[in-house]
Amino acid sequence: MLDTASWTPFVHRRIVVWGDTDSAAIVYTGRFLDFMLEAIEALLRERVGADWYRMNVDENIGTPFVNVRLDFKRPVTPREPLDIRVLVARVGRSSVTFAVQGDGAESSLLKFTGSATLVFVTARDVTGAGPRDIPDAYRRVLEMEAAGATALQG
Amino acid sequence: MLDTASWTPFVHRRIVVWGDTDSAAIVYTGRFLDFMLEAIEALLRERVGADWYRMNVDENIGTPFVNVRLDFKRPVTPREPLDIRVLVARVGRSSVTFAVQGDGAESSLLKFTGSATLVFVTARDVTGAGPRDIPDAYRRVLEMEAAGATALQG
Amino acid sequence: MLDTASWTPFVHRRIVVWGDTDSAAIVYTGRFLDFMLEAIEALLRERVGADWYRMNVDENIGTPFVNVRLDFKRPVTPREPLDIRVLVARVGRSSVTFAVQGDGAESSLLKFTGSATLVFVTARDVTGAGPRDIPDAYRRVLEMEAAGATALQG
Amino acid sequence: MLDTASWTPFVHRRIVVWGDTDSAAIVYTGRFLDFMLEAIEALLRERVGADWYRMNVDENIGTPFVNVRLDFKRPVTPREPLDIRVLVARVGRSSVTFAVQGDGAESSLLKFTGSATLVFVTARDVTGAGPRDIPDAYRRVLEMEAAGATALQG
Repeated sequence: MLDTASWTPFVHRRIVVWGDTDSAAIVYTGRFLDFMLEAIEALLRERVGADWYRMNVDENIGTPFVNVRLDFKRPVTPREPLDIRVLVARVGRSSVTFAVQGDGAESSLLKFTGSATLVFVTARDVTGAGPRDIPDAYRRVLEMEAAGATALQG
Repeated sequence: MLDTASWTPFVHRRIVVWGDTDSAAIVYTGRFLDFMLEAIEALLRERVGADWYRMNVDENIGTPFVNVRLDFKRPVTPREPLDIRVLVARVGRSSVTFAVQGDGAESSLLKFTGSATLVFVTARDVTGAGPRDIPDAYRRVLEMEAAGATALQG
Repeated sequence: MLDTASWTPFVHRRIVVWGDTDSAAIVYTGRFLDFMLEAIEALLRERVGADWYRMNVDENIGTPFVNVRLDFKRPVTPREPLDIRVLVARVGRSSVTFAVQGDGAESSLLKFTGSATLVFVTARDVTGAGPRDIPDAYRRVLEMEAAGATALQG
Repeated sequence: MLDTASWTPFVHRRIVVWGDTDSAAIVYTGRFLDFMLEAIEALLRERVGADWYRMNVDENIGTPFVNVRLDFKRPVTPREPLDIRVLVARVGRSSVTFAVQGDGAESSLLKFTGSATLVFVTARDVTGAGPRDIPDAYRRVLEMEAAGATALQG
């Protein structure tokens, strides 16, 4: 039986660097998709024991995204890091949807929210093949994350 | 009077380069937001006679994005450029929404669609101030683009 | 016999976009390596009929860089495009060295210079194998470019 | 008197992510300049108590780079993080030169070396003004770092 009692949401701390900013002296819009993807990969690495490189190269598993969305709430600058919380919002047969929220690490102010959905495929078929079932080892952890997220948002 | 009879949708051709790709031998997901933003800025430059740098630095006008969304339809590789069509979907009092579609320049295959909404603000107030009205000179051209888009999709 | 009489140096025009800039309202230092690599790949595509993606994926040829260098002469902004000239400075048995110069497309002011050396390898061996001879078809064009560059700087 | 007895070289650990890689299944060449700049800024933040954003926006101090160089020794992949050591190689009247070395965090294998020189300027004059003296508070710490680096390489 899965234990969600001790579960805590995954938070990825991201230092905001000079190179992330643009001439408006705030983080360039285009960087936020990188931030979201980095945070999702960090969850996969730390909670699922997987990363996209090993999945692709060693396990022949690809996970192309089918959809991403970002809503910007407040400007972000290098004055404080971002704490990017990643929840598993939904686990389908082949797809996983993540819900992301970025807060100022010191101010606790909400900076952005986002969502992203990926689909498991056979990697060598990434340019054409259809989806495949999520491997059981990944599914178990992803579903525990999803159960935690459901309890959190109760 | 604005002439929409000769209007054609704006298309930004983007060469896909090696550095855009990832280890799955397709374009990295994070690059598509850059593609969309580059294409929107190209429309502003060529149709509206503005670019974000001059707007910010010379005119004190900022246009932070409040929302972006991307739907990925087919993998993209450097085998062909992208033709990224940008339509002005909606012009509000302070906000503009763009609808973007990326096709393979040779294959004509649909690769991705996206939308993005920005808000006009006073640039020095970008970290806090509210929206401002779209300047008339910009509004006129943006509304002509929007009229063309409506006719196209009519 | 190769005709260098009609040879002209390859110049890659690069629009400078908002996302290239940082909070100092100039192009972020880190972007210049991308600019140089894009320009080198553009020369390969247009003069040699090759691009890194097809070389890797279709021909099993990798060209990892062993060295890059950049000297920054003047700040770059989106106020004008860059004209990036790429010369083939040296063709060895396995290696090619490029010499790059970026000028303001309108001002003609020198903005940066750079050099970069790559080595031909068998792509699947990129993580360990030694260099391989430059394929003849590539060598012929690269040597003509190098002859042109020598005549130019003669 | 400055105490270099307890000095240790600054090392910036960098997780290598999926988005850093290219279709050769190694880190894209262009990313290494970002890695080097991130590591230098991390040293400034942690040892000097400064970061480029606050220096520019709050203190009107710019530090444009005049030169960067990178030598690539072995391919980098997401299989292990990078440990990027940053030494202050030279402190001039207005300029600082950094020497950087990237090793595999688990393998300890040498991956790349690099150097970069920046010059202190008045930020609002970044597009034209000459260099200014390094502020004393920065100079003290930078010289201690340089003394440590000299002792290390003794």
